[in-house]
Parts: sequence; C-alpha cells; structure tokens
Amino acid sequence: MKVLEWCKKEIEQLTQKSKTVGLQCIMFAKWIVLAVVVGLLVGAFGSLFGVCMEFATETRFRYAWLIFLLPVVGLIIVALYRSCSITKDGGTDIVIDTIHNSGAVPFRVAPLIFIATVLTHLVGGSAGREGAALQIGGSFGDKIGRVLKLDLMDRKVLIMCGMSAAFSALFGTPMAAAVFAMEVITVGVMYYAAFLPCVVASLVAAHFASEIIGISPESFHIINVPDLNLEMIAVVVLISIIGAGVSSIFCLILHKTSRGLEKLVKNSYIRVAIAGVAIICLTFIVGSRDYNGAGIDVIKRAFLGDVVPYAFLLKMLFTAITLGGGFKGGEIVPTFFVGATLGSAIGIALGVSPSLCAGIGMAVLFCGVTNCPLATLFISFELFNYKAVPYFLLAIAISYVLSGYSGLYGEQKIMYSKYKARYINRNVKDGD
Amino acid sequence: MKVLEWCKKEIEQLTQKSKTVGLQCIMFAKWIVLAVVVGLLVGAFGSLFGVCMEFATETRFRYAWLIFLLPVVGLIIVALYRSCSITKDGGTDIVIDTIHNSGAVPFRVAPLIFIATVLTHLVGGSAGREGAALQIGGSFGDKIGRVLKLDLMDRKVLIMCGMSAAFSALFGTPMAAAVFAMEVITVGVMYYAAFLPCVVASLVAAHFASEIIGISPESFHIINVPDLNLEMIAVVVLISIIGAGVSSIFCLILHKTSRGLEKLVKNSYIRVAIAGVAIICLTFIVGSRDYNGAGIDVIKRAFLGDVVPYAFLLKMLFTAITLGGGFKGGEIVPTFFVGATLGSAIGIALGVSPSLCAGIGMAVLFCGVTNCPLATLFISFELFNYKAVPYFLLAIAISYVLSGYSGLYGEQKIMYSKYKARYINRNVKDGD
Repeated sequence: MKVLEWCKKEIEQLTQKSKTVGLQCIMFAKWIVLAVVVGLLVGAFGSLFGVCMEFATETRFRYAWLIFLLPVVGLIIVALYRSCSITKDGGTDIVIDTIHNSGAVPFRVAPLIFIATVLTHLVGGSAGREGAALQIGGSFGDKIGRVLKLDLMDRKVLIMCGMSAAFSALFGTPMAAAVFAMEVITVGVMYYAAFLPCVVASLVAAHFASEIIGISPESFHIINVPDLNLEMIAVVVLISIIGAGVSSIFCLILHKTSRGLEKLVKNSYIRVAIAGVAIICLTFIVGSRDYNGAGIDVIKRAFLGDVVPYAFLLKMLFTAITLGGGFKGGEIVPTFFVGATLGSAIGIALGVSPSLCAGIGMAVLFCGVTNCPLATLFISFELFNYKAVPYFLLAIAISYVLSGYSGLYGEQKIMYSKYKARYINRNVKDGD
Repeated sequence: MKVLEWCKKEIEQLTQKSKTVGLQCIMFAKWIVLAVVVGLLVGAFGSLFGVCMEFATETRFRYAWLIFLLPVVGLIIVALYRSCSITKDGGTDIVIDTIHNSGAVPFRVAPLIFIATVLTHLVGGSAGREGAALQIGGSFGDKIGRVLKLDLMDRKVLIMCGMSAAFSALFGTPMAAAVFAMEVITVGVMYYAAFLPCVVASLVAAHFASEIIGISPESFHIINVPDLNLEMIAVVVLISIIGAGVSSIFCLILHKTSRGLEKLVKNSYIRVAIAGVAIICLTFIVGSRDYNGAGIDVIKRAFLGDVVPYAFLLKMLFTAITLGGGFKGGEIVPTFFVGATLGSAIGIALGVSPSLCAGIGMAVLFCGVTNCPLATLFISFELFNYKAVPYFLLAIAISYVLSGYSGLYGEQKIMYSKYKARYINRNVKDGD
C-alpha cells in the first residue's frame, strides 16, 4: 500500500511538473518569436537610421557651408516637435520612465527623433546617435506590444528588447546592447526576464545591420596591452579618478546648460536659434570642425594619440549648447569622445600607450554617466580589445564608485548605495 | 544683490558637494584597503588549498589503492564535523544565508571544509572544489569584518569579497569571480556596492595565486569557432535545451539522493561508510577512474572529443552519492564535467566541433544550476575563447529560461520571474 501511495504521489508530482515545463516552453517560444520580430523590425529601422546618419555626416564633411543652416534647422526641429505636441521632450528619459511607471512611449517619438537627429548631424550640431536609437527602439517595442494587446509587464520587456535591438544595429555590439537595456533602467536590479528576448533581438538586429544592410560595426583598436604591473595600475587609477570626476562634471554641465538656457530664453524658437548661432561662432573661434557632429573620426585619432589636451573640454561645451539649445541626438557618443580624448591626453602626458588610455577613458566615462558597470565591461570587449580585461575591470569599478549619483538620465533609479550594501532607491542626481 | 545671493547659493552648494565628495573618497580608500587585505589573505589560503588539491589529485593517480580508504575517510570527515558541532552542514548555503539574514559564517567552517575536501579528493570521491573555496572565502571575509568590528552591511560586502577572492585564486578567473559573488546570492539584484571590493580582491588573489604560488589558471581551448549560421544556431539551441533539462535533473538528483540517504540511514557514520563502499563498487563496475575526483583531465579530453556518450550520467550518479553520503566538496566542477561531456557527445553525434560544443555545454550547465547568466558569460570568456561570444550569449540566455527555478543552492533567492517582468522573490526549488 505504501509503495502504491508513493507511486501515486510521484506521478502526481510528475504531472504537475510536466504542466509547468509545458507552460515554460510556451513562454520560451513566445519570447523567441516576439524577439525575432522586434529584432527584424527595429533592426531594419535602426539600420536605415544608421545609413542616414552616415549620409548626413559625409554630406556635412563635403559641404562646409551647411553649418550656417544650424539656426534654421533648429527652428525646423522645434516646429516639428511642437506640431506633434511634444513641448517638453524628456529624450531617453521618456523610455526609462515608461518602464518604471505605467505610461507609454508615444509612437511618433520614433520618426521625430530619427529626423531631428539626422538634421542635427547634417548641419554640425554636437550630439550622439544612441539616444535616438534607444527612443526609436523603445517606441517600436511599446507599439508592437500594444498592437498585440500584451499586458504591461510583457510590454516593458518588449521596450527593453527594442532598445537593445536599435543599440545593437547601430553599434554592432549585441552583448553590450542586451545587457545595457536591462541594466540602465534601475541600477542594481536586473530584469532577467528580458535577457533572452534582448539577446535574441540584439543578435538578429546586429546580423541584419551588418550582413544585409552592410553597416560595419564600430571598433577602436587598442594595440600592445602591457601586463598590469604597479606602474600601470597607477595609470589606470589616475585616469579613472580624473575620468569619474569629468563624467560628473559633464552631466552637471549638460543639465545646468539646459536649465539655464530655458530660464534665460523662454521662447524655444529663439533659444534654438541662439544655440545654433553660438555653435557657429564657437566653431570659427576654435578653428576646427572636430567638435561638430558625432566625432567618431576624432575618437579614432585619439586612439592614435593625435589629440589636443583640451579637446574633451570643448566637446563638453559644444554638446551642452547643442542639446541644451534644443537640437536632438544622444549623449553617449559625445561621452565616448570626451573619454577617449581625455584618456589619450593623459596617456601622452605620461608616456603610456594612448590607445590603451583612450579605451580606458571611454570605459570610465561611459560607466560614469550611465552607472552601468557590467554593460560597460561588455561594450569595452566589443569595441576595443578583450585582452585588456584587467584594465577595464579596475577602471570601471573605480569609475562606478567615484562618479557618485550623477548620471545622464534623471529618470534612472539607483537601488542600492554605491558605498554600502543598503537599499536607497533614489533617482540619479541630474546636476541640481 | 541677486548676483550676490546666487553666488552665496552656489558656494554653499559647492561646500556641500565637496563634503560629499570627501566622504566618498574616504569610503573608496577604505574599500580598496579592505579588499587588498581580503585578496591577500584569502588569496594565500585559497592558493594553499589549490596546491593541496593538486597534491591530493596527483597522489590519487599515483596510488590506486587509496580508493579503498573511502569509507574510512568518510568516517573521519563526519567525526571532524561532529567534533566541531556542525551536524547539519548547509555547505555553500551557509554563506548565502548569512548574506540574506543576519547570521554569521562560523570561522571553523574554513579549515573544516579545507581538510574535508582535500581528503575527499585524495581517496577519489566525486566532487568539486569551488564550494570549498566559496565557504573558505566567505568565512574569512566574515571573520575579518568581525575583527574590525564593521557593521552588518559592510560585513556582507566583505563576505562577497572573500568569496570572489577564493574563487579567483582557484580558477584564475577574476572577472567571473567578482560578478559571481554579486550575482549568486539574489538573482535579479546586484549588490554593486560590492563591485569595487570584489574586483580588487579578485585581481589581487588571482595575481597572488598565479605569480607568487605558481598555480596556473584553468583554461579549455575551443578551436575553430565557425560563424553563427542557421545550422549552428540549431546546434546551440539543441545543446541548450538538452543541457537546461539535464541541469534541472542534476539538481534534482543531488537533492533527492541527499534527502533519500538521510531518510534511509539515520546514522551519519553508517551513511558515509555505505556511500564510500558504493563509490568503490561503482568504480570497479564502470571499470574507469574517470568519475572519481574533480575530473579536470576528463573535461580536457571532452574538449578533444574523447568521451563516452553516457559519461555525464555516470558523473551525476557518482557526485550525488559522494556529496549525498556526507563527503565534502563543491558541485561546480562536476557541473562543468557533466556539461562538457554532454556537449562533446552531442557535438560528436552531429559532426560539429566537440570543443565548441563542450564549451557551450559547460556554460549551459553552469548557468542552469547557478541561475547566474552574467557570471556564466564572463567565466566562458575567461575559461574558453572570447571569440565564441554569440554562441555563449544565445546558449546562456536559453539555459537561464529553460532551467526553471531549480538550482544548487536552496538559499538562493530569485527576485523576478524568468518569464515575466514580475517580482516573485522566491527561493530556488531544491528538487522537491
């Protein structure tokens, strides 16, 4: 009898277990299909964006006079956003906020940020492109979720999915893209439910962008990675400490400029026109076009050690005025620019490989402004050289701690103190 | 007047800011010093453990008759634990539980698990060594925290620090070690306050182990990584699905055997003696010593495709009896063994590179039993070949989802559902 009872119990357990396993398999299949759809759609749109950005940059290089259109383009951008009734544009914060709360990413954000970012780059505003990518991906993800009538929780996963797909298509870094979307929303909490969908969408989007559209992924080569001895540790620590400080200052300048300009000039048309004129004047005062556009070419030169020591300061200024004035684009590529030129300059001053120092600088700045140490590690491997692991590890860990609670995204939450294993649940300090 | 007021306000803000920065710098310095101390101490003890383990394994290979001492050594281990009044040994769960709650890791755990693991390996029990490392590191970290009279929160960080230092010294994988300690406690929550301390302790311990003691880090070479085309995707998906299932079954067998033996034989001396005799009999029935000890040599052979298809089953059986009977050691190296032999066997059957499949199998199993996708990614880079990124990424993501809520560590918490962005806060299911 006892054996019979035991058998019955085991069979019941097995039935229960197989039901759970069946349910899990359905969920698995569902997310694979959704992720492939998001990966393809966002990959296509993201690739198109990438191609347009390349075109805008090339055109800007060819026709130097385009810079004089800055004020005009500024007016067009403001008018565009006004006509779509987005007067207070939160940028990437819109997407982050939607995942925290129960809002929605308006779908018109995608075409708007697409056009506005391409226009900004065409005339030489100083900005990045990943902010646009995150918004495009996020709004696509949300839209797909709404069309399929998914519940809020699944829609949040799809938003993250879209973010990573767009990021991945544009930068060719699927691993960093997947982890970044999970890590950036709430630092300290990992929405691992989004891991498989984000990975699949990222891989599909990266494949689509590189193999079908032919966008070549960015990469910056660190040459000759020496062993991490005491002398090199001192170099890493120095770059990390200075870089962490600069990342805080960069966030502060971005926010202060934006608020300051808003207070000084209430009318957003006049504001953007003034900012446009300011960028034109600055460009001619500086006597170089290095600080207009994204500046990927300058980052590449920084890896070769061909950089002036104050380049990072000028880039911060140009970007703050461009974005604070009302032009559109991301903050990440400028962050990379600041990190690479700062690192390279320190490397040259100390007589250490500028390519290694530029890579470390980029990692330090990226971690400092995004508060995402693991995504930073992954992006360092994908953009630079896996061999420099211990350098990145140390630099990123220091930057995470010393950059404090400042950050690019005011809606980003930091769950645990950076200095103690304590729950704090606070928003990133946006420079006030 | 307005300008004066503004200046005053700004100066006040700056003073406040510099106070915060000063405090952050003190915290920074404190953690660097503590982490270096933990890294050196645990690195030294961990290296000594590594050397002893190597000695035990070599001696076992040299004197085949040592296997007949299994029951005697079993009795000694039980007597040792009894004499230190640890009757119900939670293994690695003790450390995880201490971080969740406010207990302490008894310091005698460190020497106990050290001796017991070395003895188990000397006579050919089937077990790993990282369980020992985690317990040694954890109890050292806790002890240092108590000696310095640190508060509970800081002690938790030091425990994680110790765990990563020991893991890193033993495996030579500082990056994975640092992230594993942060990720394994509560899946979905990252205690980033421990990031810098863990990174520094890991780097110091790894350096100490390899440069001063001369322990060479493990590595298994994946040769010829093909592009991830549709055919290879199918292979990865297949290995991941089978591997995720096997990882759940492995956890189930481990727990069921342990509980079953406890129920069947109440007396722990008799239990361990029976288990010892069982391992001896099994070894002679199988006619091979491949399933005794850690089996690193067999893992290496699996990478060359030299493996029998049922090797993973036998390893699960040997390990379940060894650990369930009361011998000591970790579960991770056996997990690697199961993954590598399973993957390799699938690779041979499909005519695909066995080294690539063995590596994927190891990653899938490790992620399946630990529920730590990011640490698995890092360990894959450090143990195998960074070039196989997309393979690992996909395999780990699938394994994370399909392995469900089973796991090695019953005290591990999973914060968010694996299938939805929903808070669940549940313990890992330990096979019941």
